[in-house]
Amino acid sequence: MNKVKEFNDYRSRMNERLLESNDKVIKRIYNLDTNAFMDGHLNKKTKELIGLTASLVLRCDDCVKYHLGKCFELKFNTEEIIEAMSVSTLIGGTIVIPHLRKAVEYWDELNKHV
Amino acid sequence: MNKVKEFNDYRSRMNERLLESNDKVIKRIYNLDTNAFMDGHLNKKTKELIGLTASLVLRCDDCVKYHLGKCFELKFNTEEIIEAMSVSTLIGGTIVIPHLRKAVEYWDELNKHV
Amino acid sequence: MNKVKEFNDYRSRMNERLLESNDKVIKRIYNLDTNAFMDGHLNKKTKELIGLTASLVLRCDDCVKYHLGKCFELKFNTEEIIEAMSVSTLIGGTIVIPHLRKAVEYWDELNKHV
Amino acid sequence: MNKVKEFNDYRSRMNERLLESNDKVIKRIYNLDTNAFMDGHLNKKTKELIGLTASLVLRCDDCVKYHLGKCFELKFNTEEIIEAMSVSTLIGGTIVIPHLRKAVEYWDELNKHV
Amino acid sequence: MNKVKEFNDYRSRMNERLLESNDKVIKRIYNLDTNAFMDGHLNKKTKELIGLTASLVLRCDDCVKYHLGKCFELKFNTEEIIEAMSVSTLIGGTIVIPHLRKAVEYWDELNKHV
Amino acid sequence: MNKVKEFNDYRSRMNERLLESNDKVIKRIYNLDTNAFMDGHLNKKTKELIGLTASLVLRCDDCVKYHLGKCFELKFNTEEIIEAMSVSTLIGGTIVIPHLRKAVEYWDELNKHV
Repeated sequence: MNKVKEFNDYRSRMNERLLESNDKVIKRIYNLDTNAFMDGHLNKKTKELIGLTASLVLRCDDCVKYHLGKCFELKFNTEEIIEAMSVSTLIGGTIVIPHLRKAVEYWDELNKHV
Repeated sequence: MNKVKEFNDYRSRMNERLLESNDKVIKRIYNLDTNAFMDGHLNKKTKELIGLTASLVLRCDDCVKYHLGKCFELKFNTEEIIEAMSVSTLIGGTIVIPHLRKAVEYWDELNKHV
Repeated sequence: MNKVKEFNDYRSRMNERLLESNDKVIKRIYNLDTNAFMDGHLNKKTKELIGLTASLVLRCDDCVKYHLGKCFELKFNTEEIIEAMSVSTLIGGTIVIPHLRKAVEYWDELNKHV
Repeated sequence: MNKVKEFNDYRSRMNERLLESNDKVIKRIYNLDTNAFMDGHLNKKTKELIGLTASLVLRCDDCVKYHLGKCFELKFNTEEIIEAMSVSTLIGGTIVIPHLRKAVEYWDELNKHV
Repeated sequence: MNKVKEFNDYRSRMNERLLESNDKVIKRIYNLDTNAFMDGHLNKKTKELIGLTASLVLRCDDCVKYHLGKCFELKFNTEEIIEAMSVSTLIGGTIVIPHLRKAVEYWDELNKHV
Repeated sequence: MNKVKEFNDYRSRMNERLLESNDKVIKRIYNLDTNAFMDGHLNKKTKELIGLTASLVLRCDDCVKYHLGKCFELKFNTEEIIEAMSVSTLIGGTIVIPHLRKAVEYWDELNKHV
């Protein structure tokens, strides 16, 4: 099984597990998360770029993967993604580089399975 | 070997390795860590909940696992643990969610091996 | 004007400003924040302690002040608050100490104005 | 003197002080910072939004102020700025709110002095 | 009163307040902090440089000030301090720059009062 | 294949991938990273210790591994490395301990393959 599918499957399975718990705060955070990234004063593409770069400076590999997946669906090209991540690396420092390596590996994986 | 045992074994083995080094600062931090979570003005259960939620907002998966193990020993129920972690997720943001997924997976693992 | 009132006034004024903006995500985060700290499987006091200690390890002075205010209303005594914060300092490291100093100063301020 | 001028003056004075030190690494980081935010595969406006939101999730008030100043020059409107910051707050959690309050205060200050 | 004295006075006063609380964990953390920075396998100067740079990447202004004071007592020269801080800024990213500005201001203040 | 080689191979392969992208900001950050750790007002050994301890308090396992590799080449002994890491653990808190365990495991691995 490829890495993209593996990531998505685990993510879906555990999200379901969490939502089954019927915790109202978790449910509403998930719901809010869906709404926050829809078109508004800023469009979806801009918001996903915010999601990607915020995840990268906060060094959350799984969050980066999730937003890379969304950016891929929204047809960002590789140059744009690399540039966005280079700005994040400058802001977040060389401490971000190991996460940048994993991010570009996942981005290439996404493009391989088109 | 199940995930709980695997985690505990690695943790014990490396802690021993670190304590063998005879570094006084490390020794005293370990010692302090044991004392800090004992009954005092606040009871053990409250302190473990603090340990769990602080670990989650700081997004330290292994620290979360350790405190989940302790919370399990102290007989917290699933509803209490999920609620404590939902408050942490609100405080720490959606960036905490991937760690929440791993946490609930480990919690279920703990309950499976009763 | 004392520091407690000054903090609360600024906080209220700017929260109103943010809510006037009619941004749905912000409104719902504020709303969720109110609900998450109500009695549930865990009681209010435990949740406020989680809020306080999470804020301290994340080194957010204003968040610490806010939760200290709530803990004060809920009749925590000084020994309990100091102990909760000592656990946070151990978890978060000596980097937390400057925030601990401000926290205890604010706690004393709260007690002065009873 | 207003808060915008006060912030910019201190920033300029200390940046000069740092550059006078002739430290090559610092000089090159400053230089890189200027280049990274120019038009490229992504335009300036998108990059400033990345700068703003990354600064907010990393809870750096002065970085937020700097990027708000740039966003103001680039003619973002208030709705767009608030929406970008609301996404950041969701990602970074309620711990971001005190920084959001200061950010909106500074944004209003920028608009007052047009 | 100059900024160095103001910082030291507040720090001492609040440390005393915290130690008076008789919390054993806090007392032992303070004690450990004193011991950890003494000559050992690494000398004091190297350890203070570690303290300074760790504080800077963690963006704790008061911790930076404290270690700058210690570095000043240990006769580091300005070139060494700036270079150490430039390495930290590269590691921690441009998000560190506002803290670097405050750090160099405080360092100059220390040198002014010789 | 041993863990040291595995780490270095992945790191080299992905760094090449990133540099092939021709992103100017990434190229210059990599270049700066090489220069910053050369002998200057502070020597290489001191700078690598700064790199190691900053990486540890920021809890970046891969950054820690990289700097441990460099420290190994520069002939630091185990006592010095453990002591430097114990100071980092005190500063960064018990949250650093899981990263300390992985660090000492990797350090032992480096020494095994001499």
